[in-house]
Amino acid sequence: MKIAGANISTSCSNVGREFKRFLVSAKPSRLAFIFILILLLFHFITSHLNSQLGQLYSKTDSSPDTSYRLRDLKHIDELKRIKRSISNELRNLESKRNRMQDEILLQQERHMSFEQTVKKAEAEVELLKRRIIQLKTEQKEVEKPKMAAPARLLASEESNIVLTPPTMHYKCQMHNCFDYSRCSLTSQFPVYVYSENTGNSPFDVTSFVKESTRDAFSASHYLTNDPNTACLYIAVLGEWSVDLSLGTADLEHKLISLAYWRGDGRNHLLVYFSHHSTIQNPLLGANTGRAIVAQTNFERNQFRTSFDIVVPFLPSVRTNYDQKLEDVLPHMIPAMREYTLSFQGQWATDYNQEADDGFDLRLPPRTDSEFHPLLMENINLMTESKIHFITLLQTCSQIVPISISSEWSLCGTASDRLSVLSRSTFVLLLPAEDHSVLLSTSIFMTRLSEALQSGAIPVILGTHVLMPLHEFISWEKAAIILPQARVTELPFLLSNIPHPEVISLRRQGRFLYETYLSSQAQVVESLLAVVRTRLQIPPIPVADVMSDVVPHSSYPVENHEVSPGDAETEFGMPPVEEATSSPRFTRNYTSVTLDSHEMWNKIPGPFHLYPFTPNDRLLPTDAQFIGSSNGFRPIGGGEGGTGKVYQESLGGNSQWEQFTIVMLTYKREEVLLQAVERLIGLPHLNKIVVVWNSPEPPGPELHWPDIGASVVVVHPEKNSLNNRFVPWSEVETEAVLSIDDDAHLRHDEILFGFRVWRESRDRVVGFPGRFHAWDPRSGGWAYNSNHTCELSMVLTGAAFFHKYYMYLYTNWMPAAVRAIVDEYMNCEDIAMNFLVSHITRKPPVKVTSRWTFRCPGCPVALSQSQEHFEERHRCINQFVKIFGYMPLVYTQFRVDSILFKTRLPHDKQKCFKFI
Amino acid sequence: MKIAGANISTSCSNVGREFKRFLVSAKPSRLAFIFILILLLFHFITSHLNSQLGQLYSKTDSSPDTSYRLRDLKHIDELKRIKRSISNELRNLESKRNRMQDEILLQQERHMSFEQTVKKAEAEVELLKRRIIQLKTEQKEVEKPKMAAPARLLASEESNIVLTPPTMHYKCQMHNCFDYSRCSLTSQFPVYVYSENTGNSPFDVTSFVKESTRDAFSASHYLTNDPNTACLYIAVLGEWSVDLSLGTADLEHKLISLAYWRGDGRNHLLVYFSHHSTIQNPLLGANTGRAIVAQTNFERNQFRTSFDIVVPFLPSVRTNYDQKLEDVLPHMIPAMREYTLSFQGQWATDYNQEADDGFDLRLPPRTDSEFHPLLMENINLMTESKIHFITLLQTCSQIVPISISSEWSLCGTASDRLSVLSRSTFVLLLPAEDHSVLLSTSIFMTRLSEALQSGAIPVILGTHVLMPLHEFISWEKAAIILPQARVTELPFLLSNIPHPEVISLRRQGRFLYETYLSSQAQVVESLLAVVRTRLQIPPIPVADVMSDVVPHSSYPVENHEVSPGDAETEFGMPPVEEATSSPRFTRNYTSVTLDSHEMWNKIPGPFHLYPFTPNDRLLPTDAQFIGSSNGFRPIGGGEGGTGKVYQESLGGNSQWEQFTIVMLTYKREEVLLQAVERLIGLPHLNKIVVVWNSPEPPGPELHWPDIGASVVVVHPEKNSLNNRFVPWSEVETEAVLSIDDDAHLRHDEILFGFRVWRESRDRVVGFPGRFHAWDPRSGGWAYNSNHTCELSMVLTGAAFFHKYYMYLYTNWMPAAVRAIVDEYMNCEDIAMNFLVSHITRKPPVKVTSRWTFRCPGCPVALSQSQEHFEERHRCINQFVKIFGYMPLVYTQFRVDSILFKTRLPHDKQKCFKFI
Repeated sequence: MKIAGANISTSCSNVGREFKRFLVSAKPSRLAFIFILILLLFHFITSHLNSQLGQLYSKTDSSPDTSYRLRDLKHIDELKRIKRSISNELRNLESKRNRMQDEILLQQERHMSFEQTVKKAEAEVELLKRRIIQLKTEQKEVEKPKMAAPARLLASEESNIVLTPPTMHYKCQMHNCFDYSRCSLTSQFPVYVYSENTGNSPFDVTSFVKESTRDAFSASHYLTNDPNTACLYIAVLGEWSVDLSLGTADLEHKLISLAYWRGDGRNHLLVYFSHHSTIQNPLLGANTGRAIVAQTNFERNQFRTSFDIVVPFLPSVRTNYDQKLEDVLPHMIPAMREYTLSFQGQWATDYNQEADDGFDLRLPPRTDSEFHPLLMENINLMTESKIHFITLLQTCSQIVPISISSEWSLCGTASDRLSVLSRSTFVLLLPAEDHSVLLSTSIFMTRLSEALQSGAIPVILGTHVLMPLHEFISWEKAAIILPQARVTELPFLLSNIPHPEVISLRRQGRFLYETYLSSQAQVVESLLAVVRTRLQIPPIPVADVMSDVVPHSSYPVENHEVSPGDAETEFGMPPVEEATSSPRFTRNYTSVTLDSHEMWNKIPGPFHLYPFTPNDRLLPTDAQFIGSSNGFRPIGGGEGGTGKVYQESLGGNSQWEQFTIVMLTYKREEVLLQAVERLIGLPHLNKIVVVWNSPEPPGPELHWPDIGASVVVVHPEKNSLNNRFVPWSEVETEAVLSIDDDAHLRHDEILFGFRVWRESRDRVVGFPGRFHAWDPRSGGWAYNSNHTCELSMVLTGAAFFHKYYMYLYTNWMPAAVRAIVDEYMNCEDIAMNFLVSHITRKPPVKVTSRWTFRCPGCPVALSQSQEHFEERHRCINQFVKIFGYMPLVYTQFRVDSILFKTRLPHDKQKCFKFI
Repeated sequence: MKIAGANISTSCSNVGREFKRFLVSAKPSRLAFIFILILLLFHFITSHLNSQLGQLYSKTDSSPDTSYRLRDLKHIDELKRIKRSISNELRNLESKRNRMQDEILLQQERHMSFEQTVKKAEAEVELLKRRIIQLKTEQKEVEKPKMAAPARLLASEESNIVLTPPTMHYKCQMHNCFDYSRCSLTSQFPVYVYSENTGNSPFDVTSFVKESTRDAFSASHYLTNDPNTACLYIAVLGEWSVDLSLGTADLEHKLISLAYWRGDGRNHLLVYFSHHSTIQNPLLGANTGRAIVAQTNFERNQFRTSFDIVVPFLPSVRTNYDQKLEDVLPHMIPAMREYTLSFQGQWATDYNQEADDGFDLRLPPRTDSEFHPLLMENINLMTESKIHFITLLQTCSQIVPISISSEWSLCGTASDRLSVLSRSTFVLLLPAEDHSVLLSTSIFMTRLSEALQSGAIPVILGTHVLMPLHEFISWEKAAIILPQARVTELPFLLSNIPHPEVISLRRQGRFLYETYLSSQAQVVESLLAVVRTRLQIPPIPVADVMSDVVPHSSYPVENHEVSPGDAETEFGMPPVEEATSSPRFTRNYTSVTLDSHEMWNKIPGPFHLYPFTPNDRLLPTDAQFIGSSNGFRPIGGGEGGTGKVYQESLGGNSQWEQFTIVMLTYKREEVLLQAVERLIGLPHLNKIVVVWNSPEPPGPELHWPDIGASVVVVHPEKNSLNNRFVPWSEVETEAVLSIDDDAHLRHDEILFGFRVWRESRDRVVGFPGRFHAWDPRSGGWAYNSNHTCELSMVLTGAAFFHKYYMYLYTNWMPAAVRAIVDEYMNCEDIAMNFLVSHITRKPPVKVTSRWTFRCPGCPVALSQSQEHFEERHRCINQFVKIFGYMPLVYTQFRVDSILFKTRLPHDKQKCFKFI
């Protein structure tokens, strides 16, 4: 009885549970039938038992009677038998019931799985519907052909436009002297250089100029060996050694003898480099036909505005890689230096008559030297008043010889001069004083270059001066240029320049020096860039790094326990869409025209065309609805919204797009595979690029999870943390999400970060914040990862940035920074933050509180050790030295979704469930 | 017994409580003594009672014995007496104990109040210490004198620098022809105009030019009536009526007769305005001495680069206020219009020989017209290929007569032309074809002006053209300028301009049109600005509105129940510091030099000097520690931190500063006074400016709460919501916090908002977010205040913005916007968001979730009604019409403090307690 009873009680509770389930599921009538059957059976059995037992006990309860004993015994046996049969019956029923229950459970499971299938199917239908809409939109969008790097279209040998030569060569302008037909917008600016190699350069230039230009030109991407298709022909005429001077007639003869002179020298650029401080100007007075003249020394009537080019002084350094600029260029801080204003020079009283032979005597006499006394008077006044700590050297122990009387000669050696300059806030630059004649001289260029190099802000007294490459460089952002008459107001003006402007002038001067003046290669590139910009031909596109892609096979992800996307289903996460790369090179032709000012006067300079930049212009929001809807996915079709509606569209101010995940990995295959698995079903993901830093490439046995987006493995030649920021050709979107292989980011965190990045495309947008702290004890910077309310870095272990910065990190940033990263095997994230803040002068953006980050079970990461931390201190201080100042910028806020932790009415949804 | 027992039990519990207190406070030994005394007493009394009662009961418990009855009775009486005396004793003790307890409580209270006093004193000491540090810092900072608007320094009548006249007048440049001594940097550029009024203008100009220039010049702030102190002398020479032409000799004679010609015409500006399409150029070939020539029609050999000025065509409209620009200027959206490229003009085959008389025949013959056939061929090709929907009219029904053969004449009336232009994306501008001679003509200027006005982007075929005011305007940002030879590549180029660039070009064109070309006043102002910018003299400072300040007295705030500052004491809120206004006019001299490009090519143009702008440059963070620490308050002295350390310093990238609260109020004195009271003790608050919009000024009986900062009441003439954004002279800080009088903001919310604004100084930073929603049914915009995950406005009922935007709202923004605000008595906050996003192309910043906002008990605000909401829809659409596009920009995030809702270790503090 006990067994049965226990069974009954458990089965009762089972029945109860079943009943509840039944009520909840309220399903097939068959179940109900079975259930009722069981109930009836039970009722019957229990009542039957009760009546039998009742009889039994009523009998045993009667008074003892011996005459009935045998009968009784017999009766008991019978009863026992009955009992046995009944318990057997019960047992059978029990097992039957159990079987039925199992069956019911099975049915229920089947039912549930069926329901799931239906849901999945519905979702798929929904996805397909949306895909169709998207495809339609895409189809519409595709109608306009996508842009690419410009195709090359070369000139035929013979021009189809015949230009009449201008009456006089000194009236030459681009529109009447230059043959545009050789230089189509898509020609990529092919340049042919007459040289020793081709044996057709008739000019005897000094071996210094010969060697430096040969190397510099041959390094240029624009160089062509085919003179027939060239747009520009360059002849390097000088500088000459003093004993090899030519007369004007000889010179003109040699010009005409140039192989592609074509009678009038159209599309020729005659370059006369200067490396000495004496003025050589043999082209003065010579007929140069239609050729453009580029040189350092120009006189007023010689220079043709918007046609001729003022070339900087040719430095001794070949390329910027040859010198460590951070060793050459002094620190930019503090704003005010030991001397407010300095000047080093001596007035040449002995006039060298011989050197004047080059001048055209038809020109009016030099009349402006009467300004000299006023200038001297004021310089003396400034020297005497010690208020501004002005140092002015007017006599030198050693003078660099010059060839004209009306200019201040240089003092001593370059290193002497630089030593004073690097202690000066401003430096006075006095151009040659016969300024109705001399517009630029090599001495002036030397002074300018040395000033910029040492961070002394040039104060140029003379608005008539031709600044180098002034056609496109805004010199007023790097120098104070005043008419000589304002010498009296100079102290007043200089004392009214606030510190931020002082540093801005110095910083811009350094940028101009590094970009245009610092080496032979830069000077030559700048010269080509002037002509190219004039012709409105886009520069050479920046090169992607072709990645050594490792082929691999994939396995389906069967049981992804934590799929953070699922938690969001009620919010209607957007379906995973087909991989679509960002449009490239859409601004080929407008960047050289509309933005020529920015290209020349901002980092990284005008030498490269980028497929996209973080500063590309936005469309106004009404254009999204009127006439330019291509690619836009406004939220709620423009009506806005939260929850599901918000999740379905990217909205914002720019077109729909995707992002690429870049993961650096080194010998942690399991951790890596888990990290990749976790990214299953991540919307807006274009591709995962795994940078395989391990020396051995992944074996063919390594299979990758199939997560919806493709996984590409690139295997760089060298194990380097810099590989994280290499502009792999496989990265085809503007947005890059860099994550460590052990970083645990939720899908919603990634999606929100992506939305924020889309609004702050020029910044690093990410999760782990750090800051640079001032250490008053050491007087330097310390890396700080403490909790703080002010941060200045977002680590690239989990951050979005623009692919543009990969190009700049790899190609533009000083190589010394990357070398430090390699030396320490550390700090690449700090370097990236330095780079971006240096360019933008903005802090990074920190997104949401970190709900999840490092995986708890993973092996301790590199970043935990004390040594690692110490290295980061050193990195920061070394980077500051290279950049010349601390570029990081502070921020005191964090970014959350608009309705994060906001009390909402019950019927409203948030933007994200958790962030 | 009962009474005593009850007393004992209560006193026991009292004692227990006392004991606990005693243990907790563990204080004076006197208490201990009293306590022990009471305990002893109790022990004694209870034991005494027990023994007596014990005796009593032991006696009564004995067997009854009558002989003892009397004695017993007597004994009972005695017992009763004892009992009474004991209860009395007890009662006395009880009251004594109570007195003592009272005394103890009193002592404790005294002790606590003493402790508070000590704490207060300590805080005061701390505050004083910090104040001393601050004063020291300030003292150090004061050493450099604070800047102000430049003082005026005028020229003496006689120059101290004698300039030799240049050999030939056509060699004139600023440095050799202009007398800078009359134009000190601080002279504020005084301009003297020869006119009918002064009776010394010898030139007979048309009455149209006479009237328009008289009005335009006299409206200028630079005009002076004192010729002796003038920097620039302006003579308006033309244009002439056709019958009043002068010969060159007569003209030169008249020039020399000018009262302040001083023999060589130094510092003179000779202006020849054009209003007709025929070319008048009488100054060609005349000797103009040292004078600058400003006119519309220039020939090559006549124009002196960086000296002469190309003036735009003089329009018929006097000032921009005379025309409703929003009615004249078509909408800027969609990017692509009906016609991709249009052209209207007819080639003048009949050459008007007479009009050629003005030309200098010494110049070379016109040689470039052979380009004409190529041009025609390509135009015909473009017309035939319908791919780009090009409309090209080459024959007109009505021709505007011109005076030269080599230019395309205008077709029909201006409104005919504008109607085609406003349907064109691009318009072809063909300059006169004899381009070795004609650099600019009045027909070209007319075409340019009409193109910009109608939003058709000028495509100028001819790089030789002189664009108006090209010395400072970057025309490449508003027009496509190509050499004629590139006509073959035109369709390719135009089809490669992406939509955002198309709108950017159009928008910039509209800005240039409005700022420089749209009215006579703008043309004249631009002309003056060119000379002024050349001279590097800062423009006239923008005017603050002098406020009619209502004097008032104040009362101390006694019982401020909710003082949100107190809640933060554990976080060490910064003490309220002395009111310090932001430094003004620090960039007087650098803004005209360093930023001349930005000043001329960005809103609001170069005509005014602002005391500060949101874009002033930042110092690098290392400068805060090296050499430029003035005014900086780095967090934790540079080491960073949270909680108290964070609250004590503003940190960030800019100097310590304060903000001004501006409150608009209208007939709600009680609500207002409560709002002011709530601001008691708010750190970084400079001042509260109450704008009293009620018609009646506040009576003398209205007292104001004394909240630490001063409260200033200004009473504008007119009740207008625009008064909220008037640049009152009383607002002396860059940061302005605008709040409604019924807005409830917590102190910490305000402080965090202020910190965020300091990082985003060019944006509106505030609390209540709204957005513009596209209504596909109406095809227009709707104002939306629903919960959303994307916003585009932050209401100025609780927002920070820069005072700079007050100047722009009041002086620069189209008056039509302010008129709409006044008409509806609504939408001023929308207008401010439009303005700021129009200028910055950035969204506002929403700060923290709104914990508290409207006061619950206040009367229902204006903003609640349905009508109010409908008006806001209408405002948005009307504003869009005025701005020409929808300037608002979306944002999808909100900003919180870095450690908001972050799990921290126990020993760490957050940035703010609640936000």
